[in-house]
Amino acid sequence: MVGIGWSTDEKEVTMEAFIIGIDMGGTRIKGVLQKGKEVVESIYLPTGEGDTFKNSVRSAVEQLQQKCSGQARAIGLSAPGIPDSTNRAIAVMPGRLPGLEGFQWTEFLGLPSFVLNDAVCALLAEAKSGAAVGQKNVVLLTLGTGVGGAILIDGKPYQGAFNKAGHWGHTSVEATGYPDVTGMPGSIEEAIGNVSVARRSQGRFRDTQELLNGVEDNDPFAQWLWLDSVQKLAVTISGISNAVSPDVIVLGGGIAHAGEILLTPLRRFMDIYEWRPSGKGSQIVKAIHSDLAGAVGAAFFAHDMNHTQSI
Amino acid sequence: MVGIGWSTDEKEVTMEAFIIGIDMGGTRIKGVLQKGKEVVESIYLPTGEGDTFKNSVRSAVEQLQQKCSGQARAIGLSAPGIPDSTNRAIAVMPGRLPGLEGFQWTEFLGLPSFVLNDAVCALLAEAKSGAAVGQKNVVLLTLGTGVGGAILIDGKPYQGAFNKAGHWGHTSVEATGYPDVTGMPGSIEEAIGNVSVARRSQGRFRDTQELLNGVEDNDPFAQWLWLDSVQKLAVTISGISNAVSPDVIVLGGGIAHAGEILLTPLRRFMDIYEWRPSGKGSQIVKAIHSDLAGAVGAAFFAHDMNHTQSI
Repeated sequence: MVGIGWSTDEKEVTMEAFIIGIDMGGTRIKGVLQKGKEVVESIYLPTGEGDTFKNSVRSAVEQLQQKCSGQARAIGLSAPGIPDSTNRAIAVMPGRLPGLEGFQWTEFLGLPSFVLNDAVCALLAEAKSGAAVGQKNVVLLTLGTGVGGAILIDGKPYQGAFNKAGHWGHTSVEATGYPDVTGMPGSIEEAIGNVSVARRSQGRFRDTQELLNGVEDNDPFAQWLWLDSVQKLAVTISGISNAVSPDVIVLGGGIAHAGEILLTPLRRFMDIYEWRPSGKGSQIVKAIHSDLAGAVGAAFFAHDMNHTQSI
Repeated sequence: MVGIGWSTDEKEVTMEAFIIGIDMGGTRIKGVLQKGKEVVESIYLPTGEGDTFKNSVRSAVEQLQQKCSGQARAIGLSAPGIPDSTNRAIAVMPGRLPGLEGFQWTEFLGLPSFVLNDAVCALLAEAKSGAAVGQKNVVLLTLGTGVGGAILIDGKPYQGAFNKAGHWGHTSVEATGYPDVTGMPGSIEEAIGNVSVARRSQGRFRDTQELLNGVEDNDPFAQWLWLDSVQKLAVTISGISNAVSPDVIVLGGGIAHAGEILLTPLRRFMDIYEWRPSGKGSQIVKAIHSDLAGAVGAAFFAHDMNHTQSI
């Protein structure tokens, strides 16, 4: 976004404008109708097989338009992958949502439509109406199927060269570890993401919820496996603190909502690993938005992009 | 620097101004007299024991002032550690250069004096008159005794909360590895820095030069140890590419000047590990400035800070 002039500071959200935000999740299309900073309607539709997700997106938009008598002026779209330089389409998304790459949404939906990476959307939601309101430099990690991430610098989403920045999930904590989907060995995504629980547990647990049930049942194998994941997360977060030193690190995604079973050991490991010159450490907070984070952030993005481009 | 308004773009270096830059190295105080972007004089003095380094700094300044008939208007100081929020003193530097913490240089030297972390200075030197001229988003890694680093975002040095950002050396590639000076286990500083060669080689090599001599003599132990370091550096750089996606990654410090013995295996590992959506990878370049990098960057910083504060 650097260069487009978008900022959390510069523009107040116009309170009367209706904006639609849509998040293209793997199993559900989630939509919100926002008026200013408030979500006034939300909707969930199945993503569907193949490229039917596009019709689900259009259907969600139509239903939300009906709720505001067609007054929404722009659409924000939260999607996996890497947006093109104009944020009008997703440029790169191998393997999921067939037909997403290069698809022009403005034409298809009939309204100015702006596409942003889903983790960047989640960060915007936190920065605008969540856990990071008023902060200038923020890193978000989303702990779910995979590990996503996004960076806010000086109040603006920072996307870097090729709009690739923020993918902390594909940083390594084990240089000789199992390679993840990008080829990175021993990444934090492989160490704590839902995607790898079956492999990491040698088939004992199908997902993180089952693993955490094992922890609560005092199964030593489950406890060891979980603490190993949290230890690696603490090392990753300590590294983010040393390299980027954001004002606040926001943890989102399903695993972040596990609560004290995550936070108690995480704090213990951070006390050991984090470098705290003059005693100052990173502020770590839980995301406020949950499954609508992507849609809400997309709506904020569309509001500001539409505002920027119409004046 | 965010907030102070400094930028590589906004201000042209005034060609007629003399500026002094001083780098406080562990063994030598290095000084330059710059006129505009050109180094017109340089000087090296021993750092000395205890707090005699302060007198060495003053002596270097006096000798450089004589070279320009006392015309230098500001002094930039490159130092290890973390500067305070006004960049007038080093706030935190445990263990080296006793008396540096909190020391007010403007008073001591009698001219407006601006202090910056040495790795940030090295990055400024590359951005202003080195390998990263014209680039907006840059990460620098310095590979020497330790591993330092610095970040340029949107043309400005980015220092983050508590001016701590850029310390990539204290990010981990081995979550259960040997702890470094900050407590980070398995950091890249421990994996490739000169500081750990004796430990890593079980006493066979005293420093990286001895290790590289062993590599050239086809000693299998030296080859394995060196390739293990380069593999971890490739994992670190691939992680930087995924997380920050800078326009260019600059490698500086003594080890970066080793040449093909570093670059050939580094490129091979990067081909394997780096995520390259649409085939686009990071641009990796060697720093142009060498042992005067800190002093040169400090001079550029002082020029711009003095300019900013005097108008």
